[in-house]
Amino acid sequence: MLAVLTGCQSVTSASADHLRGTGDLGLIIERATGSVLVIDHSEYEILGRVEGLGDLSHASVVYSRDARYGYVFGRDGGLTKVDLLTQTIVKRVIQSGNSIGGAISQDGRYVAVSNYEPGGVNIFDSRTLENVLTLPATYTNASGEQAQSKTVGLVDAPGNQFVFSLFEAGEIWTVDMVSQPPAVSRHPAGKQPYDALITPDGRYYIAGLFGEDGLSMMDLWAPEQGVRSILPDYGKGEQRLPVYKMPHLEGWAIADGHAFVPAVGRHEVLVATMNDWSMVQRIPVQGQPVFVMASPDNRQIWVSFSHPDNDVVQVIDAQTREIVRSLEPGKSVLHMEFTPRGEEVWVSSRDSDRITVYSTRTLEEVATLPARKPSGIFFTSRAHALGL
Amino acid sequence: MLAVLTGCQSVTSASADHLRGTGDLGLIIERATGSVLVIDHSEYEILGRVEGLGDLSHASVVYSRDARYGYVFGRDGGLTKVDLLTQTIVKRVIQSGNSIGGAISQDGRYVAVSNYEPGGVNIFDSRTLENVLTLPATYTNASGEQAQSKTVGLVDAPGNQFVFSLFEAGEIWTVDMVSQPPAVSRHPAGKQPYDALITPDGRYYIAGLFGEDGLSMMDLWAPEQGVRSILPDYGKGEQRLPVYKMPHLEGWAIADGHAFVPAVGRHEVLVATMNDWSMVQRIPVQGQPVFVMASPDNRQIWVSFSHPDNDVVQVIDAQTREIVRSLEPGKSVLHMEFTPRGEEVWVSSRDSDRITVYSTRTLEEVATLPARKPSGIFFTSRAHALGL
Repeated sequence: MLAVLTGCQSVTSASADHLRGTGDLGLIIERATGSVLVIDHSEYEILGRVEGLGDLSHASVVYSRDARYGYVFGRDGGLTKVDLLTQTIVKRVIQSGNSIGGAISQDGRYVAVSNYEPGGVNIFDSRTLENVLTLPATYTNASGEQAQSKTVGLVDAPGNQFVFSLFEAGEIWTVDMVSQPPAVSRHPAGKQPYDALITPDGRYYIAGLFGEDGLSMMDLWAPEQGVRSILPDYGKGEQRLPVYKMPHLEGWAIADGHAFVPAVGRHEVLVATMNDWSMVQRIPVQGQPVFVMASPDNRQIWVSFSHPDNDVVQVIDAQTREIVRSLEPGKSVLHMEFTPRGEEVWVSSRDSDRITVYSTRTLEEVATLPARKPSGIFFTSRAHALGL
Repeated sequence: MLAVLTGCQSVTSASADHLRGTGDLGLIIERATGSVLVIDHSEYEILGRVEGLGDLSHASVVYSRDARYGYVFGRDGGLTKVDLLTQTIVKRVIQSGNSIGGAISQDGRYVAVSNYEPGGVNIFDSRTLENVLTLPATYTNASGEQAQSKTVGLVDAPGNQFVFSLFEAGEIWTVDMVSQPPAVSRHPAGKQPYDALITPDGRYYIAGLFGEDGLSMMDLWAPEQGVRSILPDYGKGEQRLPVYKMPHLEGWAIADGHAFVPAVGRHEVLVATMNDWSMVQRIPVQGQPVFVMASPDNRQIWVSFSHPDNDVVQVIDAQTREIVRSLEPGKSVLHMEFTPRGEEVWVSSRDSDRITVYSTRTLEEVATLPARKPSGIFFTSRAHALGL
């Protein structure tokens, strides 16, 4: 009896010891093995590995508003709810044949996924992953037939909306989740939007266009005005080299009144003024940029690159617009994530099976962690940001 | 044996059930009883009350980077570390005779407290609350004697710095916590800085002046340039009514390229353009504003007021700059806190012993919670923001 009671007490005590906050946790995608690492970015610690998430060759994560659960969007249409505290899968659904990303509503009640096949958006209850809305991205194609468009650039927006773009249809749709049933508005977007971003305050939705130069910007404070074209020279028109990878728009940096934008197919970061969105400078860099990300204090711009120049990360001073350091975090750098208040940045190197953590102050390495073919890094502080 | 084992399992299981994320928690100060409520803003639920925090008649809270622990700064110099998961006090120290607020460093390692008596700043290890640095705010007074100044407007800044102002000395000090020992820089600040704010990106530190009109702004990207004076008409010079309470500078709203600023002693919210900090508009409101706060999407400006007009909160549209609603959340409104992504706002009414939660979309009440003479409301998402 005594032995049993002692055992019992130790279990209870161990459970109490395992209480922990979730503000400094994160998930790292292991793209080749369909697994994710749960990490603690205070202690540079891997808390566990969760397996069985399917095809994560292109994956992203959003978080519940309590910062406990991550929703992982996989390439194969899988939507997986992961509990970071127990490092287990709570629920997993295959919600389409082919998916490209997702978002969680401002109030945390809905998770939306944008799909290529069949083209449209599916919306789920964030607690149960029950489907609450299926939105086929229907349009009339050039032959006058009804078709379904691939959907891209899905983000959450203030007012409990989702916003996304239709690639073939050339449209931007907003979905208002407060109305019952949810209200959809359609707006012309330009030719073949392939990705989009929303500014950190949730006001401007900006879509990159594959079918023409320039970008389409919609002011969500005045959606009835439709889109206007910005950065007219942006895109394939300025292409001089083969484009290895279209740059990620979510990575756009906005700092010191300027947007820092990855050029398409050129070894340049472009600088545009936010006043009228005109181009003011081209910063030469060592390869074709993929992610161009501002530190949370807007002081530094970190740039990752596409193949074959993807073993280097460059850091630009947002004020002088000069490169202050070139770093070599390992082979095939795929993603970067700043700690919430920006004192450090985590960088994934797929072909070195490694995460490298840098101090943004000294630009020196402060830690490394092993990971299997790591790609995206997502910290739970995203739970509290619009449009991530 | 079986019964014991069953009991044992139920304990373990209960512990597992009590696992929870900390992203949607917060503390509400109960100013008259020296207690705080731990709340869950997803469920509008009071998880518990923690008592024994001393004099909370003027109190504020910062959070550990894991969003589990709140550091409560009390009027009596008390610094109390509260565990939101167990709703208990982890440690409490009386670190001065009279304190006015505090901050946590960018990396989460240090908690700093600004004190009136004795004038200076004390810095503590955030885990243990061991004192690691005492900084007397020494200066030479008008009689040529060494004296200690009251310290105000303490914030954290990028680069693991603390920044604060010295009331009698008329100085701004920065403390670099990366250097060993920490490096202090002193800058003239103007006459009698009484409070300060730092912009959300951590770049500009702006101090309000009691001894002269205007505000002093320091660009932390170029501290060697010292301060410059902005909004030259701001302050007591424009006073037309008795000033019941100097407005809180932390509450400044920055939206749509403009700063929305509480006028001193006038029934107005002032609008200044961020380009050159000139005044562009005065918005008439129903009383003397205390807090002027932007919603996280920068779309709305919420205004609370000083006695005797403090039973009303007004909401301004940031674009049209018109009042869109006047709300009556109860008697003596003291504070407001937006949920992290801004779908709701929590408002404390001291003399109604009540918290009222509004939807920012409908501006309708969605919940109320009882509280004893509530004042400040602080959500754990502050853990991830600079300067809060």
